[in-house]
Amino acid sequence: LLDDPEIDAIVICSSTNTHAQIIEEAAAAGKQIFCEKPIDLSLARTDEALAAVERAGVKLQIGFNRRFDANYRRVRQAVESGEIGTPHLVHIISRDPAPPPMEYVRVSGGMFVDMTIHDFDMARYLVGEEVEEVYTAAAVLVDPAIGEAGDVDTALITLRFAGGAMACIDNSRRAVYGYDQRAEVLGSRGAVQTGNQYANAAIISTGESIRRDLPLNFFMDRYVESFVAEMTAFIEAVRDDTPTPVTGYDGRMALILALAARKSHREGRPVRMSEIAGN
Amino acid sequence: LLDDPEIDAIVICSSTNTHAQIIEEAAAAGKQIFCEKPIDLSLARTDEALAAVERAGVKLQIGFNRRFDANYRRVRQAVESGEIGTPHLVHIISRDPAPPPMEYVRVSGGMFVDMTIHDFDMARYLVGEEVEEVYTAAAVLVDPAIGEAGDVDTALITLRFAGGAMACIDNSRRAVYGYDQRAEVLGSRGAVQTGNQYANAAIISTGESIRRDLPLNFFMDRYVESFVAEMTAFIEAVRDDTPTPVTGYDGRMALILALAARKSHREGRPVRMSEIAGN
Amino acid sequence: LLDDPEIDAIVICSSTNTHAQIIEEAAAAGKQIFCEKPIDLSLARTDEALAAVERAGVKLQIGFNRRFDANYRRVRQAVESGEIGTPHLVHIISRDPAPPPMEYVRVSGGMFVDMTIHDFDMARYLVGEEVEEVYTAAAVLVDPAIGEAGDVDTALITLRFAGGAMACIDNSRRAVYGYDQRAEVLGSRGAVQTGNQYANAAIISTGESIRRDLPLNFFMDRYVESFVAEMTAFIEAVRDDTPTPVTGYDGRMALILALAARKSHREGRPVRMSEIAGN
Amino acid sequence: LLDDPEIDAIVICSSTNTHAQIIEEAAAAGKQIFCEKPIDLSLARTDEALAAVERAGVKLQIGFNRRFDANYRRVRQAVESGEIGTPHLVHIISRDPAPPPMEYVRVSGGMFVDMTIHDFDMARYLVGEEVEEVYTAAAVLVDPAIGEAGDVDTALITLRFAGGAMACIDNSRRAVYGYDQRAEVLGSRGAVQTGNQYANAAIISTGESIRRDLPLNFFMDRYVESFVAEMTAFIEAVRDDTPTPVTGYDGRMALILALAARKSHREGRPVRMSEIAGN
Repeated sequence: LLDDPEIDAIVICSSTNTHAQIIEEAAAAGKQIFCEKPIDLSLARTDEALAAVERAGVKLQIGFNRRFDANYRRVRQAVESGEIGTPHLVHIISRDPAPPPMEYVRVSGGMFVDMTIHDFDMARYLVGEEVEEVYTAAAVLVDPAIGEAGDVDTALITLRFAGGAMACIDNSRRAVYGYDQRAEVLGSRGAVQTGNQYANAAIISTGESIRRDLPLNFFMDRYVESFVAEMTAFIEAVRDDTPTPVTGYDGRMALILALAARKSHREGRPVRMSEIAGN
Repeated sequence: LLDDPEIDAIVICSSTNTHAQIIEEAAAAGKQIFCEKPIDLSLARTDEALAAVERAGVKLQIGFNRRFDANYRRVRQAVESGEIGTPHLVHIISRDPAPPPMEYVRVSGGMFVDMTIHDFDMARYLVGEEVEEVYTAAAVLVDPAIGEAGDVDTALITLRFAGGAMACIDNSRRAVYGYDQRAEVLGSRGAVQTGNQYANAAIISTGESIRRDLPLNFFMDRYVESFVAEMTAFIEAVRDDTPTPVTGYDGRMALILALAARKSHREGRPVRMSEIAGN
Repeated sequence: LLDDPEIDAIVICSSTNTHAQIIEEAAAAGKQIFCEKPIDLSLARTDEALAAVERAGVKLQIGFNRRFDANYRRVRQAVESGEIGTPHLVHIISRDPAPPPMEYVRVSGGMFVDMTIHDFDMARYLVGEEVEEVYTAAAVLVDPAIGEAGDVDTALITLRFAGGAMACIDNSRRAVYGYDQRAEVLGSRGAVQTGNQYANAAIISTGESIRRDLPLNFFMDRYVESFVAEMTAFIEAVRDDTPTPVTGYDGRMALILALAARKSHREGRPVRMSEIAGN
Repeated sequence: LLDDPEIDAIVICSSTNTHAQIIEEAAAAGKQIFCEKPIDLSLARTDEALAAVERAGVKLQIGFNRRFDANYRRVRQAVESGEIGTPHLVHIISRDPAPPPMEYVRVSGGMFVDMTIHDFDMARYLVGEEVEEVYTAAAVLVDPAIGEAGDVDTALITLRFAGGAMACIDNSRRAVYGYDQRAEVLGSRGAVQTGNQYANAAIISTGESIRRDLPLNFFMDRYVESFVAEMTAFIEAVRDDTPTPVTGYDGRMALILALAARKSHREGRPVRMSEIAGN
C-alpha cells in the first residue's frame, strides 16, 4: 500500500498500538497521514512518530473529530470572535451511554487516554490556550469490573489554563439516557452553551409528563457529520498544501493532559504539565 | 354595602346573571366597579349596564386578568414597540385541563361566551385593533354530554382584523396534560411566542425519555400573579383617578366577538361584527 | 430516454405544466414514476394522468417529501400508535423565509396550489383521514406585487376532517427569521408538537438576551434528509414491487384541497370537497 | 425584645459578626431562632453558639433558603425517590450578576464563606450525604480589586462524597446575563437538571436571532418564593414543635466545607474535612 505511488495519503484507524509504527512507515514513504487518536499511549513513542513526520515533511492530522461538529464550532466561534469576552469557566460534559466491553477496557490505556482525550483536546480548542495544571477526582461507580481492570469509569477533572481560565471535564462511562455531549463557556462578556442532538424535535405531552425521545445514542450517530467534515478538511489540506486543522502537536498535548490526569488521580494531587513533558 | 360611604369601590365576582344589576346599583351609589367577565350574556343588557356606568361617571374595570400576565404582556410589548413589526398572523391556544361540571356548562352561556371570551379579549389586546369578521369551526369531541346540553367543547376560530391581520383561536375543554395557554404573533419584522408555566424547571432524563413535570394545571395556579396585578391596577386607577386598564368597552367588544362566533358556528359561515352590533 | 430498456424508472422534476404529459408518456413506456408535486394545476388533467398510470399498471410516487422528515414522522407515529389518542385539533405552521421571484409567482398557480399543497398533504398524513370542508382566510400582507399578480401571501386555512378533527394551516411567504416548519396535534389522550431545525444547538447569553442562531433558512437545508429518504423509499418500492408510500391518489387529494381553499378564499365561505370533485 | 414573653421566636438577619452572640442571648431567653447563614466565620464561635442552643433546648433554623426553591426541591426529590438511582456526578452552577461593593467584600469572610456556602449546603442537600474531601481551583478574573482585598471571584470546587459521588461547584461573581443558578445530578438510572428562572417565557424571533429576555437578575427576584417558604417552614416547626428543616448542624457543615475550600485554595491541594473539624 505504502509503495503505491498512486496513493498520496493514508488514513490510520487501526488499533492504537499500531499507530506510531504505521505513521513512521507512512512518513518514510512520503504519504500524507490522517491518524485516529491517540497517536500512542506513550509520550516517548508519540514523540518518535512525530519526529518521523517532521523529518519527512509530510502532513499529519489527528482524528479529533469533535472540533468539526457544528455545535462545538459555534462555541469556539463565540470565544474566538470575542462574542462572550475572555473565557473564565468551561464545562465539558462527555458521557458514554454504556461502558465498552471489558476486553476493550483492558487494552484501552484507561479512560483518560481513551475517552477523556477527546475532552482534553476540546478544552484546548475551545479556550485557545494551553493548560498548566490538572486535578482529577475519579472513581469506579458504574461497574466494579472496570475497577478490577485498574481503570475508572467516572471522573471530574479540573484544568487550569495559562491565562487563568478554569475548566471542569465531566466523564461517565454510563449515562442511561444516551450519549451526553455538552459544553459551555462563561466569559467576561457572556456565556455560550451547547447541548445534545436528537433524532427528532417532537415533544409529547400526556397526563404523565412532557417528554421527548432520547438523544442520539452514541458517536456514530451523534458525530457522523463531523467525521465527514474532518475527512473533507484533511483532503483539502492535502490538495491545497495547507496546514492540517488538527496537528500532531494537538495530539501530543492531549496525550500529555491525559497522562497528567492519570498521575493526578494516582497521587491525589494537582499535577502540572511540566511534570509530564518537562519544559 | 352600597350605602356605606366608607366604601369607595366594589368587586363583583358573583354569578354572571347578577353582574348587570349589581353594576347598575353600584353605579347609582357612586361606587367604582371591578366586574368579572362577562358583563352579561346579552348585548342589550350589557349596554344598559354600561349606560348606567356612563351616567354615574364611575370607573369600571372588567376582569380580563390575562392581560396582566407577564407572558402575554411581553407578547403585547413586542407588538406595541414595533419589535416584530406589523402583526400578520396570531395564534392563541387556550385549553382547559378538563371540562367544568355539567351544571356549570348548562348555565354558562356556552363555551364562546364563557371560555373563549378571554381569548377574544386577548386577540384584541395583542393586535391592538378591532376584529371585523369571525369564522368558527367547532365540534363536540371531548364529552357527548356537552353536546346534549347544546354546547361545544372544541373549536378553531378565525378572526380577521381591520388592518388585515388574521388570528386563530384554538379551544379545547380537555388537554389531559394540563392548562395550555399560549400565544404567538408573526409580524412583518419577526415573531413572538409564549408558552406554558411550570411549577418547576427540572428535566429528568432516564432510559425511556427526557421529560419534565406537567404545566400548572389550571387558572388558579397559572394566573395567580395576574389576579393580583389586575386588582392592583384597579386600585391604582381608583386612587389616582386614572382610566381603568380594561374598560366596559373591552367587555362589550369581547361579548360581541363571542356572539359572532356562536352565530358563525350555528350558520356555518363567516359573520361580520356589524351583524351583531350594527355599525 | 423513455425508449431505453435499461431504464426502469424516471424522476420528474420539470416545471409543473409538463408533469401530466411526461407521466402519460412514461406510463405508456412502462416506466415507474416519481413526480414532483403537483401533478397538474387542473384536476381534470391530473385525472387523465392518473388514468394513464392506472392503465399502464406502473407505480407513481408524488414528491411530498415532508412525510419523510424525522420530525413529522414522529408526529404521525404519535397519532398512529394511539400515544396521544384520537386527534382533535391540528396546527400546521409553514412559512417561507421570503417570497419567490415574481416571475415564479405568476406561473405557480397561486400559493394554495404551490405552497400550501404540502400542508394539505401533511394534514391528511398526520390525521390519517380525509378532509370534508375547507375555509380560507387569506390576504396580501407581505408584498403588494403578489396581490397585483392575483395571488395572496398570508393565510389561515381551517380544515374539517371526516371524523370531527379540525386543523389550522398557517402560511406566510415571509418569516424574516427563516423557514418556519412546525406541526402539532392535540388528541384525546395527549398532544405532540414539533419545531424547527437549526444548524447548531448553541445558546449565547449576553447582557442583552439569551439567544440562538436562526433556524435552517429554507427547504434545501431543512429537508435535505427527507429528499434522500423519499427517493430511497421510491427505489425500494420499485425494487421490491411494493406500493409507493405516497401515491397518485395523495397527489389528487392535495390538489382538491388546494382548489377548495382557493374557492373558499374567492367566495368568502366554507367549501366542501364534494363541490370540487363531485362525490 | 428578648425579654418580651409575648415573643416566641426571633429572626436574625443582622451582619454576620453579630449572629453568634444574638443566638446565645436568644437561646438563653428561650426563644426559637431563625438565623441567616453563616452562623459565624469561625468554627469555634459557631460551636459555642450551637452549644448554647443545645443547652437551651430551643429550635434553630439556618437560612439556606435555596432548599425551599421548587426547582432544587424537584432535583432533590428525583434523587431521594430513586427516580435517577444512586448519585454519581453533581454540578452546581451559582453565579452572581455582579460583584458586591468592595466594602462588603472586605468584611464578607471571602467568597467561599459568603457565597459558596449556599452551594456547599446545596451539594449536601441534593446528594444527602457528607463530603469527605474538597479541592479548589480559584482565581481573580472579574475584578483585580477583589484580589487586592485578598479574595477570589471565580472558582471551580470539586467535592468527594462519602458514598463515592463527586460534585463540581462553579462560582463566578459576574455573569453579565444575570443570576445563574442551576444544578444537575447524574445518577445510576438517569439524570436531573434544573435551570434559571425568567420573568417571562416569551421568545422573540427576528432576522438576527431567536432570543428571550434575561433571567431574573438576582436573589431577591429569583428566590422570593423560597424566602416565604423557609419562613413558613420555620413557623410550622415552632407551632407544631417539630424539628426545623435546616438545622444548626447543617450550618456548621457548610461552614466546614467553606473553610476546607479556602484551605485547599491557599495550599493548592485537596483538603479532607477531618483537617478542619477533627473527627
